[in-house]
Amino acid sequence: MPSNKGVIFKAIPDGYPVIGEHIELVTREIDIKNFPLADGDILIKNQYLSLDPYMRSRMRDPHVESYVDAFKLGKVLEGHGIGTVVKSNNKKYQVGDHYHGFIGWEEYTHIPENAISGDEGLEKEISKSELPKSHFLGLLGMPGFTAYIGLNKIGKPKKGETIFISAASGAVGQVVGQIAKIKGLCVIGTAGDDSKIKYLVNELKFDGAFNYKTCNTDEELTKLCPNGIDIYFDSVGGETLDIVLGHLNTNARVVACGMISQYNTKNPYGVKNLMNVVTKRLLIQGFIVLDHYHEMEPFQKEMREWLKQGKLKYKDDIVEGIQNAPEAFLNILTGKNFGKAVVKIC
Amino acid sequence: MPSNKGVIFKAIPDGYPVIGEHIELVTREIDIKNFPLADGDILIKNQYLSLDPYMRSRMRDPHVESYVDAFKLGKVLEGHGIGTVVKSNNKKYQVGDHYHGFIGWEEYTHIPENAISGDEGLEKEISKSELPKSHFLGLLGMPGFTAYIGLNKIGKPKKGETIFISAASGAVGQVVGQIAKIKGLCVIGTAGDDSKIKYLVNELKFDGAFNYKTCNTDEELTKLCPNGIDIYFDSVGGETLDIVLGHLNTNARVVACGMISQYNTKNPYGVKNLMNVVTKRLLIQGFIVLDHYHEMEPFQKEMREWLKQGKLKYKDDIVEGIQNAPEAFLNILTGKNFGKAVVKIC
Repeated sequence: MPSNKGVIFKAIPDGYPVIGEHIELVTREIDIKNFPLADGDILIKNQYLSLDPYMRSRMRDPHVESYVDAFKLGKVLEGHGIGTVVKSNNKKYQVGDHYHGFIGWEEYTHIPENAISGDEGLEKEISKSELPKSHFLGLLGMPGFTAYIGLNKIGKPKKGETIFISAASGAVGQVVGQIAKIKGLCVIGTAGDDSKIKYLVNELKFDGAFNYKTCNTDEELTKLCPNGIDIYFDSVGGETLDIVLGHLNTNARVVACGMISQYNTKNPYGVKNLMNVVTKRLLIQGFIVLDHYHEMEPFQKEMREWLKQGKLKYKDDIVEGIQNAPEAFLNILTGKNFGKAVVKIC
Repeated sequence: MPSNKGVIFKAIPDGYPVIGEHIELVTREIDIKNFPLADGDILIKNQYLSLDPYMRSRMRDPHVESYVDAFKLGKVLEGHGIGTVVKSNNKKYQVGDHYHGFIGWEEYTHIPENAISGDEGLEKEISKSELPKSHFLGLLGMPGFTAYIGLNKIGKPKKGETIFISAASGAVGQVVGQIAKIKGLCVIGTAGDDSKIKYLVNELKFDGAFNYKTCNTDEELTKLCPNGIDIYFDSVGGETLDIVLGHLNTNARVVACGMISQYNTKNPYGVKNLMNVVTKRLLIQGFIVLDHYHEMEPFQKEMREWLKQGKLKYKDDIVEGIQNAPEAFLNILTGKNFGKAVVKIC
């Protein structure tokens, strides 16, 4: 029988999840031929699994409400993924069709009819597209859409303005920076590794970038943003946000996309420079991309046009095998990934 | 010769200004008859001076840029005020006319033509109105307009929502609460004195209020806002803001009007609960009422209508004599005032 290795949620972490203690690989088998499917159900052979920082917030006590449900203890972790249908009791899906939606961190996922979240438009695209399939989990998937919505709806970029992007070589940051370049902004980014900085400047043509681990953020911003910052696309929060507040211009916007520096601590950083919000009429706004899925069409259209014109690049960070998913996920939380983290399952 | 006592800016304070050290009363005289006026200038006998928290931010190093100029060392402090013209070289102003604009903290102010900031519409209103003149510095002046703009443009109140207001019996807070009541919101406020709490509940008909000095803010908000908070009208910042962040609903708005808890310290409070901005899609927005003066007309119209209908009350806290202005100003910073602080100069 084929194996169906998976990663389960074993215990709630306080800080960084520990492999074996909080998330654990389990070895199982699956009998595809005799696998029981109720009316409307499908069985998916998973190909690609997207790993994203927000997953850390699902590793919590289920009594704490949030915008997305907590993972269930003892059950397989979930995420966006791409697979092919290997068994179907659902009229919409034939064996061999692509599935693009929520899957488990496992080799095969059984999806009951009421849990099918597949995006039909994207599934057809995946089948006929020449792009790497992983791009549909990154550049053209949730992270790319997050960049597009956050930048346009909250950032409201205007030609000639300066944008600063943290986690700039990450799944979202690299898209934000390239769209901002297309729109005529001065684009400055930060990341935690010199190879990432080279990528931002040489490949993505950022106007400036620095390694926050080896440079002084305050000094670099003074140097690289002499006219101040109009938009801060924030994926890290904490001390970086605190420093940036002092460099923002009047009427600047902070796109609060994530705060990864605060996900693995019980002692959050205290942000001291909020007085700038009043004196500089700042806007700080959070958003959840799930609220905007009805606006997917203009995103897909505009991104494909830019892709065709050669205006967009995208770096995926692909690890092979579901058994490597736990470590790859930890690498996101510590910034060791380089580009959009994707697990190639088969 | 008539006296022209005034209060000068003597030195830049780090924390709370000290009378005699940072701001000081000086005794002077004025020869009105022989007072030299250039073409276009006017001389005002001051009647009412508005004292407002933002003045603390003007007591700074002039090299630090902000939305309003620093006070000039050695010169008389400034503020919004009402006076009557006693000498005029300006066609627009006759002796005896009212002046409503920036004046000095002094008995008489010489206003050069290029510094005349009088609001002609309001000046005519003041002359014919039966309302207390002080109301034109509070309810119908800058603080009332601040309440109106902040609540409507950033708070975007909807019937049935819950609003929480800090410094709720202050110049701005009492207007915010009453407009919110008119619009059908559940209105909860906080202030630092039991007599203020009684006023909020008994006179202004707030749905709930508590003394933050004697109660636990977190517990009171849990009790008084069982459905969470949709709008936080923030004039204090710091720890209160931090606690409120935990009580905000999804898509809540924080109207960042002021942060008085942070004006007199070099060690600002570190706000730890900003993760809520992302998970609850919060909006935190600062504003400066000066940016909105072109929108004064609907404010004046709507407020007068509500006043006529008996829907608005307003508590002024009037001290007599310019010599008492320094202490009255310190009372604002420490929360000892009760209502809108105004100095009746003559």
